[in-house]
Amino acid sequence: MSTQVFTGDTTFFPGIERIAFEGPDSDNPLAFKVYDANRKIGDRTMAEHLRFAACYWHSFCGNGADPFGPGSRAYPWDAGTGTALHKAEARLDAAFEFFTKLGVPYWCFHDVDLSPDADDIGEYEKNLQHMVALAKQRQQATGMQLLWGTANLFSHPRYMNGASTNPDFAVVARAAVQVKAALDATVELGGANYVFWGGREGYASLHNTQMKREQDHMARFLTAARDYGRSIGFKGTFLIEPKPMEPMKHQYDFDSATCVGFLRAHGLDQDFKLNIEANHATLSGHSFEHDLQVASDAGMLGSIDANRGNPQNGWDTDQFPSDLYDTVGAMLVVLRQGGLAPGGLNFDAKVRRESTDAEDLFAAHIGGMDAFARGLEVAHALLDVSPLEDWRSARYASFDDGDGQAFARGERSLTDLHSIASKRGEPQQRSGRQELYENLINQYLRR
Amino acid sequence: MSTQVFTGDTTFFPGIERIAFEGPDSDNPLAFKVYDANRKIGDRTMAEHLRFAACYWHSFCGNGADPFGPGSRAYPWDAGTGTALHKAEARLDAAFEFFTKLGVPYWCFHDVDLSPDADDIGEYEKNLQHMVALAKQRQQATGMQLLWGTANLFSHPRYMNGASTNPDFAVVARAAVQVKAALDATVELGGANYVFWGGREGYASLHNTQMKREQDHMARFLTAARDYGRSIGFKGTFLIEPKPMEPMKHQYDFDSATCVGFLRAHGLDQDFKLNIEANHATLSGHSFEHDLQVASDAGMLGSIDANRGNPQNGWDTDQFPSDLYDTVGAMLVVLRQGGLAPGGLNFDAKVRRESTDAEDLFAAHIGGMDAFARGLEVAHALLDVSPLEDWRSARYASFDDGDGQAFARGERSLTDLHSIASKRGEPQQRSGRQELYENLINQYLRR
Amino acid sequence: MSTQVFTGDTTFFPGIERIAFEGPDSDNPLAFKVYDANRKIGDRTMAEHLRFAACYWHSFCGNGADPFGPGSRAYPWDAGTGTALHKAEARLDAAFEFFTKLGVPYWCFHDVDLSPDADDIGEYEKNLQHMVALAKQRQQATGMQLLWGTANLFSHPRYMNGASTNPDFAVVARAAVQVKAALDATVELGGANYVFWGGREGYASLHNTQMKREQDHMARFLTAARDYGRSIGFKGTFLIEPKPMEPMKHQYDFDSATCVGFLRAHGLDQDFKLNIEANHATLSGHSFEHDLQVASDAGMLGSIDANRGNPQNGWDTDQFPSDLYDTVGAMLVVLRQGGLAPGGLNFDAKVRRESTDAEDLFAAHIGGMDAFARGLEVAHALLDVSPLEDWRSARYASFDDGDGQAFARGERSLTDLHSIASKRGEPQQRSGRQELYENLINQYLRR
Amino acid sequence: MSTQVFTGDTTFFPGIERIAFEGPDSDNPLAFKVYDANRKIGDRTMAEHLRFAACYWHSFCGNGADPFGPGSRAYPWDAGTGTALHKAEARLDAAFEFFTKLGVPYWCFHDVDLSPDADDIGEYEKNLQHMVALAKQRQQATGMQLLWGTANLFSHPRYMNGASTNPDFAVVARAAVQVKAALDATVELGGANYVFWGGREGYASLHNTQMKREQDHMARFLTAARDYGRSIGFKGTFLIEPKPMEPMKHQYDFDSATCVGFLRAHGLDQDFKLNIEANHATLSGHSFEHDLQVASDAGMLGSIDANRGNPQNGWDTDQFPSDLYDTVGAMLVVLRQGGLAPGGLNFDAKVRRESTDAEDLFAAHIGGMDAFARGLEVAHALLDVSPLEDWRSARYASFDDGDGQAFARGERSLTDLHSIASKRGEPQQRSGRQELYENLINQYLRR
Repeated sequence: MSTQVFTGDTTFFPGIERIAFEGPDSDNPLAFKVYDANRKIGDRTMAEHLRFAACYWHSFCGNGADPFGPGSRAYPWDAGTGTALHKAEARLDAAFEFFTKLGVPYWCFHDVDLSPDADDIGEYEKNLQHMVALAKQRQQATGMQLLWGTANLFSHPRYMNGASTNPDFAVVARAAVQVKAALDATVELGGANYVFWGGREGYASLHNTQMKREQDHMARFLTAARDYGRSIGFKGTFLIEPKPMEPMKHQYDFDSATCVGFLRAHGLDQDFKLNIEANHATLSGHSFEHDLQVASDAGMLGSIDANRGNPQNGWDTDQFPSDLYDTVGAMLVVLRQGGLAPGGLNFDAKVRRESTDAEDLFAAHIGGMDAFARGLEVAHALLDVSPLEDWRSARYASFDDGDGQAFARGERSLTDLHSIASKRGEPQQRSGRQELYENLINQYLRR
Repeated sequence: MSTQVFTGDTTFFPGIERIAFEGPDSDNPLAFKVYDANRKIGDRTMAEHLRFAACYWHSFCGNGADPFGPGSRAYPWDAGTGTALHKAEARLDAAFEFFTKLGVPYWCFHDVDLSPDADDIGEYEKNLQHMVALAKQRQQATGMQLLWGTANLFSHPRYMNGASTNPDFAVVARAAVQVKAALDATVELGGANYVFWGGREGYASLHNTQMKREQDHMARFLTAARDYGRSIGFKGTFLIEPKPMEPMKHQYDFDSATCVGFLRAHGLDQDFKLNIEANHATLSGHSFEHDLQVASDAGMLGSIDANRGNPQNGWDTDQFPSDLYDTVGAMLVVLRQGGLAPGGLNFDAKVRRESTDAEDLFAAHIGGMDAFARGLEVAHALLDVSPLEDWRSARYASFDDGDGQAFARGERSLTDLHSIASKRGEPQQRSGRQELYENLINQYLRR
Repeated sequence: MSTQVFTGDTTFFPGIERIAFEGPDSDNPLAFKVYDANRKIGDRTMAEHLRFAACYWHSFCGNGADPFGPGSRAYPWDAGTGTALHKAEARLDAAFEFFTKLGVPYWCFHDVDLSPDADDIGEYEKNLQHMVALAKQRQQATGMQLLWGTANLFSHPRYMNGASTNPDFAVVARAAVQVKAALDATVELGGANYVFWGGREGYASLHNTQMKREQDHMARFLTAARDYGRSIGFKGTFLIEPKPMEPMKHQYDFDSATCVGFLRAHGLDQDFKLNIEANHATLSGHSFEHDLQVASDAGMLGSIDANRGNPQNGWDTDQFPSDLYDTVGAMLVVLRQGGLAPGGLNFDAKVRRESTDAEDLFAAHIGGMDAFARGLEVAHALLDVSPLEDWRSARYASFDDGDGQAFARGERSLTDLHSIASKRGEPQQRSGRQELYENLINQYLRR
Repeated sequence: MSTQVFTGDTTFFPGIERIAFEGPDSDNPLAFKVYDANRKIGDRTMAEHLRFAACYWHSFCGNGADPFGPGSRAYPWDAGTGTALHKAEARLDAAFEFFTKLGVPYWCFHDVDLSPDADDIGEYEKNLQHMVALAKQRQQATGMQLLWGTANLFSHPRYMNGASTNPDFAVVARAAVQVKAALDATVELGGANYVFWGGREGYASLHNTQMKREQDHMARFLTAARDYGRSIGFKGTFLIEPKPMEPMKHQYDFDSATCVGFLRAHGLDQDFKLNIEANHATLSGHSFEHDLQVASDAGMLGSIDANRGNPQNGWDTDQFPSDLYDTVGAMLVVLRQGGLAPGGLNFDAKVRRESTDAEDLFAAHIGGMDAFARGLEVAHALLDVSPLEDWRSARYASFDDGDGQAFARGERSLTDLHSIASKRGEPQQRSGRQELYENLINQYLRR
């Protein structure tokens, strides 16, 4: 899992070396305080547990624009008078320099992050193939791997009313062009997963929408994509990504439970899992840990978009993860299900519009990696050393044998239960002890 | 559907007569301005469309208590030194006097609204049987019908950690006692539906909870209840009721999509449908109309709890419905699916703690009935007279034949779609025209 | 208040004539159903009551871009290879054609809506002066009037950390350049008001912020602007505009109460009032009507940005107003305070990204104008004909004389009150009758 | 600040001894891991910094009742057939046993927590005087001190439409009876502060409310209370407590900014400060730290109600504080303003309804005290050792001298600023570096 630092003809991050682990007492902002890639936690290294990925869009395409102003960052790779393709090549070099200086083993991309978009289908495909070939060389040179690829089916105005759920079949067909190309690219680059984020798959107004029809179309589209992917040799996991709203007023992949139900209803649950994003979970009214657990309980937690929202803001702020309660909670779910592979922890996060130095981009990723590494340490100790799992098991012991177990197996009728209750009398009160659990977590955060 | 006004030995609502329809120009607060039970809208009467029910708990048991103070209303039927059973009898008479003076054809109850609770199972059952026998007489005397019955599995402290999802099997068994009794009561009273609202089926803290295990137990429990119900001749619909939270931090029946997925995953979707409550829908981050539509699209919109929340408050305020946009939206869904029967519109709503006059209870129900009657009028006109349905159909016309239809049937592969897109070129832009739809609704609200 | 339809060399809205009032039975989407400019409601015409304004930014500069994609509308005035100034001239003609075809008597602008921005101060000023001169001609030709002007101190990246609250004094000084120019422009165009919306006056993170210092700077800045405005003959009202968040995590002008307190604390309350935007009010946890009432109670309701949010979305959706409960509530506040002049109702609203036809822009404004005209009709009837004001007055009658009045004047001590209570005994219960008030409003909405 | 463990005739918490500090490695749930009362942090002990108080209402009166069910805890002091006054005496002994075993130096109460309420004014006053005399003995015997007293003006149905803001003057006068008695009690017990939480001072519906009139009455009432308090020798701080809603739809003391503005507008800002509750701050759309900072910036941060809400629930859950980010943030504000005295950190928090063991009550308080002690440690290190304050100061250095300083003093006009900007040219971009600040906090949380 080691990667070579990549530098092409130009250095885009001068003065920044490969980020090192220096431990908790270091005051160097450009060093890891917790994340030590090769350190073992249980039977795996931190790198094996965490499978970090950096994303292409926020860090190399996003420039800080928001609805109230244009970008605040002028990237060197976007400068000059070169063609769009030349700039895309420079961007790729910048990205691989960043990935390898940071020491993140995986990356993720959309088709039109990597290569210039075009309304002309042939031109679009040619651009992408060119850039994929180049990216493949960079992967081989550095050891970097592709966590997942995807197609951007939400930015181009043609998708304003949805892609696979567009009321116009012509748009649905056009969306297939991009998915086909992005699947081809993902296979070519050895991607471990392929993601669908349904950015505009939803509605702006229920008044003008036939919701069931649109959702059926989405299922047809995913089925066609799955079949094509398998036909070209894609062995990885397909992932859909819950988000409740934004840009649309309502999005069909609202939360984990909705997505699980949708995949099962349409026979897609053997090939598809979920890519859970922290900020999407909280926008849907859940804690991050909750939506991870729902997916995991269904056997469908495939990968994680590691970011966070702002608790007072009702939109997707995509901040870098820093809250240790979130990272401990997430790693509890991941460790309990035995790991995330072939998924990983992708930093689908952007530095703030006001964070305009190159150092900020490194610091943000370092902070996120340290936060998850610390979450891993604490979660592992909670499961391995603390009484947490014993406490939980003891709560449910009455279902481990006897009538309780028989009930859990579906072997007790309502009248059976009535008889049992009549014999037993009033149940004894058992405290839920929530505060003791909370104290335990704070205790292990301190250790 | 006519009902006789009931008055027992005592009049609990002196000075209030049977509420009459007086039309929009009446200034009498105790008259209907819109709801005219026998007026035809399309091929049915308003009463047949709306199937209004009053609830027993909020109006005859609830006294205005909230977390910050005790009740503000002292009911005459609770006064005096009589036994709990005598008071229950008086309450029943008050309720039937109210139902019949208001002219609402259906009612709903929980086991322990109707009759005194008891830890002793035999005493609990005897109380309930006594009251059910009395209620049956009142129904026969008045023509009132039971929309649904249910068991209260959330108030007694034994259910503090859940009923069917309790970590202690003894509590699960005890819950079965009440469901059995409430099913018996519902059948005896000819109830058209039976409801499960999972008040504490959820978690206060994910730390101490094995979520999957609890949800599996819930499915076992509902299965046992279904089997028992069918065994005693219950032919109606079983209903579960989505609510995202409160009293628990998270409730398993979060929203329509979650409930639909749960019922299907556990093979319960042939017997169970959903009872959608407006205020629960909004607490889960959806519009009322949205959650109705999701349920209806799944063929599972069974019944409606007609109330509303306060847009600025994050808890279940259970206010009487009064927003015409909500009632128009709801009736659009109901009319499009061909009606609600055997379900209905149950006013699971409470007068404000500060509304302490008997007149307020009538006025609140009158306002709710008028609001839904107006919603019915407007929705019917939108569907029948306005261009609404034509506008919507035209948006999706490309799926009515040719490649679009073939795609919708699952007969087009990704490469087929790619070819189609390549031939067609860039899709034409088509406005979503949301503002025109919104103007249309305001136009019909004015008519 | 009549305006001439303006058409310059080119028609930007071909096929659309001056929008006429056709009454409630018209099915013409491009006609007013309610708004009849010269119809008298009480002692004023609808136009005099409502003082509608259209805004320059959303309708002539905004192209539908959102954080997930670029604009969906390609405006004819932005096409071609002309200079930025030529395009600005074309945009002005398009705007005045729209204003006058719609029949809206007022307009509003930011400096850089109207004219091309430039980092060079001289160039920026020259551009603006050129466009102001042209706009003045257009005003004279059509009778259009300027409701308010403002400076955009939030889009340019230099303002990313705030304008008057920027931690860097150099940015504060640069912001003054724009405010000076925009005040000059407003005076030149006879603007009735001047607005400050504190787009980035707030913080992204409290960690790096000295909040008190920033707020003091804001007060200094507004004071300097006020003094300059008065020095050049501006007689109108200065307005600040509450918004709780977005783009910043927290904005200092959080809501009406915060702004009122700020203006008073810094001695600005004689010159400044509030411009209340509906969607901002709801984002701050209030109803639109509430924040209007708070401002009005302080004598500081100056003007209104008439739009609405989406109840399920936590960001500023800036939809066109269409909810009649909102418009009735707003007009109740406006009528009770005797009108809005010199303020008005500015449609700070944008058509949806999916509403891409020219017709949509007209329909959206027509819908908003009809919604407020209907709100005016209903509010006037509620105040003039219904028992609403009598009901409210009767509730507070105990403060109209005797001890209650003396208390309200500050003439009763705590021991006086104790004596009064001791003599009177337990107060009588008085219902708040909320449901009756709600029924009354629905009744008048029907009429 | 040491307290003697109190045990009356009966032990209410058998088997639980005085809680000891055992350090971070202890696994004893009934020991402090961080809070070590006499340990010095800077120039004060932890006890002097934190000034912890336990509250009477949640822990000794509240029984776990919620809107969906009655209490889950049967307290021994409420058992038996004794008079209400006998039970109140037993409750007092239980409370003092708890306070002193926990080692919390302060307590807080409402009048009707401590003694039985009565509609008869004389009986109410006699009860309270009796209990106050007893409490005074307990204080003297143990060294416990009263942080603050208050009157409950929200539970009794007479206050359903408000207390000082009630539309009926008779209720306002009746409220004065309780405030007078509670002020007398607070003075008698040497209370350091007196609190007004405006539980129902707000509105359920704006339709029936004259908001300005009600707010003026509130100011009159607080003025009368202030005058009475000073007349009987109360030297402490009066506190009002922001809360945005619940039980009312809207409460007048919405947040810190609103309360600061209200106090200043009515000339109450010399005697009154704010008591900030964490869960109230978050319900109003702010972070806890934000509302503390607003109050502190105004010189009005008087005391803190230390609890927390649930991020996914929209009501006042009053959970025990456990989030270290909150406690670090709070202690940063407190340390920067030089301490809280005469205020303190009052645990206005309740154990969960499901936490039914006596041990839970201790564990919850221990967890809260450890969380704030840890917050103190980390905040002190951030201010004392880390670069935090230097980073922040450097951001604002341009206002420390020259034109920037002159501007901050109000000595630069808009034209001055224009000249300065013209000379300086485009400001240099300065990163806000938010992620680096966030990393710093996590780094110090680890140490």
